[in-house]
Amino acid sequence: MQKQEAVAESPLLVAGSKICLLGTNAADGFANIKAMMNLRHQGMKTIWFSTNASSRRVSQLARDNRACVYYVDDRNFKGLMLTGTIELLNDHESRQLLWSEGAERYYPLGVDDPDYTVLRFTAIKANYYHKLENVTFDVQDAEAL
Amino acid sequence: MQKQEAVAESPLLVAGSKICLLGTNAADGFANIKAMMNLRHQGMKTIWFSTNASSRRVSQLARDNRACVYYVDDRNFKGLMLTGTIELLNDHESRQLLWSEGAERYYPLGVDDPDYTVLRFTAIKANYYHKLENVTFDVQDAEAL
Repeated sequence: MQKQEAVAESPLLVAGSKICLLGTNAADGFANIKAMMNLRHQGMKTIWFSTNASSRRVSQLARDNRACVYYVDDRNFKGLMLTGTIELLNDHESRQLLWSEGAERYYPLGVDDPDYTVLRFTAIKANYYHKLENVTFDVQDAEAL
Repeated sequence: MQKQEAVAESPLLVAGSKICLLGTNAADGFANIKAMMNLRHQGMKTIWFSTNASSRRVSQLARDNRACVYYVDDRNFKGLMLTGTIELLNDHESRQLLWSEGAERYYPLGVDDPDYTVLRFTAIKANYYHKLENVTFDVQDAEAL
């Protein structure tokens, strides 16, 4: 697989995924994984999630903002791992950006519910896997192509 | 959700999953995630994988054997995160245990191919998620129930 092919296919895997997996560093030194709804992304460089401000994931990220985001297509043996950093956002604009109908189920007080928070992931490196081959590339360079 | 329910449902999620996600600590301080075939497990305490001895995952685990294994059922919003440690096994018996028909595609030299290796994960803690609720429990205690 050529790098060009990996760079072209990676955003398609992001766009076609219902969920992704968020990897964070827990305080005890273990990697932690959690499934997240794939709500919003800009190519593969910027990915937004929403979660509970009171959640374990948020306290881990406040301590160590390094993260990885993984997309998998298990029928076609494709995988994309992005590594980068996450910012915790609480401004009204970011909250609106991620808010969706029915989210009151999770955040009864609505878009400004203090337990509602937005995570913005910025990818640095990518590793794309398909057909037994891995291609690693720099996401900033790839987005400029 | 009661702890008893989480302990009872967790092994069903393990048994019903085609793949799981392996989380490891990379040398650069980032959590890494990779999809793995769910080949063999004993309850939720011991989980075996096979992979290439030359892979990035194996060199990460040789450096730091702490890992997490995650199972997800995205249709029913269920997730199980197990944290524990991984041993790298290369004895013939372990190789045979994980070998399956067609694995020659990945390891042309067969069950004793030097690039074929077995990972044995031993779970310590579990976190089971369903219907917006998390339950954390000790796996050793749970297996004794």
